[in-house]
Amino acid sequence: MEFEIEKKLKGKLGRAGKLTTPNGVIETPSFTVVGTKATVKSLTPEMVNTLGAQAVLGNTYHLYLQPGDDVVKGGGGIGKFMNWKGPTVTDSGGFQVFSLGAGFGTGENKFSAKGDTRKGCDSGEHCKLAKIDEEGVEFQSHIDGSKHYFTPEKSIEIQNNIGADIIFAFDECTSPTAEHEYQKEAMERTHRWAKRSLDHHNHLGALHPSEEKQALFGIVQGGRFEDLRKESAKVIGAMDFDGFGIGGSFSKEDLDEALAWVNEILPEEKPRHLLGIGEPIDLFIGIENGVDMFDCVSPTRIARNGTLYTKSGRINIEKAEYAKDFSKIEEDCECYACQNYTKAYISHLFRAKEMFAATLASIHNLYFIVNLVKNIRQSILDENFDEHKKEFLKGYYGK
Amino acid sequence: MEFEIEKKLKGKLGRAGKLTTPNGVIETPSFTVVGTKATVKSLTPEMVNTLGAQAVLGNTYHLYLQPGDDVVKGGGGIGKFMNWKGPTVTDSGGFQVFSLGAGFGTGENKFSAKGDTRKGCDSGEHCKLAKIDEEGVEFQSHIDGSKHYFTPEKSIEIQNNIGADIIFAFDECTSPTAEHEYQKEAMERTHRWAKRSLDHHNHLGALHPSEEKQALFGIVQGGRFEDLRKESAKVIGAMDFDGFGIGGSFSKEDLDEALAWVNEILPEEKPRHLLGIGEPIDLFIGIENGVDMFDCVSPTRIARNGTLYTKSGRINIEKAEYAKDFSKIEEDCECYACQNYTKAYISHLFRAKEMFAATLASIHNLYFIVNLVKNIRQSILDENFDEHKKEFLKGYYGK
Repeated sequence: MEFEIEKKLKGKLGRAGKLTTPNGVIETPSFTVVGTKATVKSLTPEMVNTLGAQAVLGNTYHLYLQPGDDVVKGGGGIGKFMNWKGPTVTDSGGFQVFSLGAGFGTGENKFSAKGDTRKGCDSGEHCKLAKIDEEGVEFQSHIDGSKHYFTPEKSIEIQNNIGADIIFAFDECTSPTAEHEYQKEAMERTHRWAKRSLDHHNHLGALHPSEEKQALFGIVQGGRFEDLRKESAKVIGAMDFDGFGIGGSFSKEDLDEALAWVNEILPEEKPRHLLGIGEPIDLFIGIENGVDMFDCVSPTRIARNGTLYTKSGRINIEKAEYAKDFSKIEEDCECYACQNYTKAYISHLFRAKEMFAATLASIHNLYFIVNLVKNIRQSILDENFDEHKKEFLKGYYGK
Repeated sequence: MEFEIEKKLKGKLGRAGKLTTPNGVIETPSFTVVGTKATVKSLTPEMVNTLGAQAVLGNTYHLYLQPGDDVVKGGGGIGKFMNWKGPTVTDSGGFQVFSLGAGFGTGENKFSAKGDTRKGCDSGEHCKLAKIDEEGVEFQSHIDGSKHYFTPEKSIEIQNNIGADIIFAFDECTSPTAEHEYQKEAMERTHRWAKRSLDHHNHLGALHPSEEKQALFGIVQGGRFEDLRKESAKVIGAMDFDGFGIGGSFSKEDLDEALAWVNEILPEEKPRHLLGIGEPIDLFIGIENGVDMFDCVSPTRIARNGTLYTKSGRINIEKAEYAKDFSKIEEDCECYACQNYTKAYISHLFRAKEMFAATLASIHNLYFIVNLVKNIRQSILDENFDEHKKEFLKGYYGK
């Protein structure tokens, strides 16, 4: 895998580049579309390609449980299995083990999956114990409650079976509210797990003798603490990874600062992926602070609830005012939904609970976000990032 | 609208022809794909076109209730509203008024929507009163229970708003188990309603002065009684309709006889549509007995439950044996699903309850049925219908 920086953002950490994978080039900054269970929900791979997406990210935790990484391997790896011809990525399973499979309460490290930032774990359905020790994590399947055990080595083996172009080292995902003491402990464990992931990956080698080895990214953690984020960037950045993930939660206010702490330290010549973040404002902040890749379920998840992005902010297409509105979602949008359907039609599909509603809304939202990132990339190349950012944010957030 | 017969089936009523509508030619016999609420469930119109479908049928009852025929009209008519560029059809709403909106119990004519052929209506949710009189039918919406009144004139006006190329006269759909006396009474009312539908259609004229008038088909009823079917074919066949629908229920055993009674009488030079029937065996029986067009929800409905057609009969893709089966549904099938995905992948999508499962299964099943009818058409042109029928049925039903 090769990464080439084409242009840097003056006085900032941002850059435009090209990442060459065995299955194609990703022009960065880039938004990677999420296909959790080897399908981008309600879309064909051709639709995903047509809307401009360059890469698809599958979830290791989900694919391990269903259909099983052996089945994905049997189907020729995630790309062939799901008929996606471009680059593919899998996360390490860390986040889901701790959020879906757990909620975990060792007395120290607790995490509620429902966006609950309280210190303790509530008694919700996702709130189950995940037992964590130096070796790995025991967790319960969110599907059938069965028990499983992930170690860094196991995560790498699963990702090896799934066969994506880019994979991630196994990390411990902490609660955003965890104290410094626990964050430090978890981060240091994540560093040891990163080393083990790397060693095991090197031990396994390429998927096939004739093929390139998968690119392995290490994950920087450290919560919201400057000293920990910097230490994590230093330790992980010094390891021989092909690129880096930046994990954990951030508050909107801290995001730019936290990313700057990390990306000033990470080796400039390697790509960086900010995990699970994708709101428009976050994309601008991420990019100007040195992020090359993003992924997020938000565009498709809110689409399935009828929420659509527009340059003037979000709208809910089920609102009464759209029932007889025969205009497009956005008059100048070139996505398949806007080129062929009216708001009245899409609104009708949602009211009638027709599956095609999710398809059209997902196409529009992914087109919006994927092309937002493409346009930011272009503004870096054109040296007008600041103007572009100002104009977009004024239209979108009204400020 | 023009109908041209290209070739007749020797010694039988079947024929291959061409029906020219304002939005394109339908080569008959043809299977019309059902798009109840102005969407073929889980498919894009481009997928519907690619799999070989020539026409789409929307349901007047459903579109009247949701989004409202005024909205469909505002969107430019059903074709433009749903982005389907070929010929369109709407039924009269008769069947749904009596099955979904009713279940009705006047003491004489009762119909249970759940395929229940008992004489009385059970107390299920679909079993509501529909009040029928000479003028029309009062029924309840299956969505919100609101009351509505359809007359032949109203059905024509709604279908005029929806704007399909081919529309149907409003008919009374009787229970398959109704006695001769009630069937006769209902049939005679259907004949009077047919006359009123035709008169009102002529009164309304074309949708726009510059356009062709919609083609109006009259519906033959008469239950399972030979004398009534023949009388209905005679009366409806003598009216100035552009084509004919054949409505009501048939038992598998009676279908060929009943169709022969009707189609020997209906004017040969006009097209005939057998309403709501589409199992493989029924398609052969329909075609050899003079049917030119079919429609049925079955291919897509069973697809959404994971049931797939193959030349050796139906299979359920969720069965354990397919979880690691990396072959295609059918090796020589040229549909999008078979060209790009394995049984293991589709099986996974169903287990994971992914929407894309319904899309792939629907494409395969519609491709199967649409092309089954196309192949039967070709066998008429090639003068080997009997051999083709024998071979297919042997493979499919094993006899």
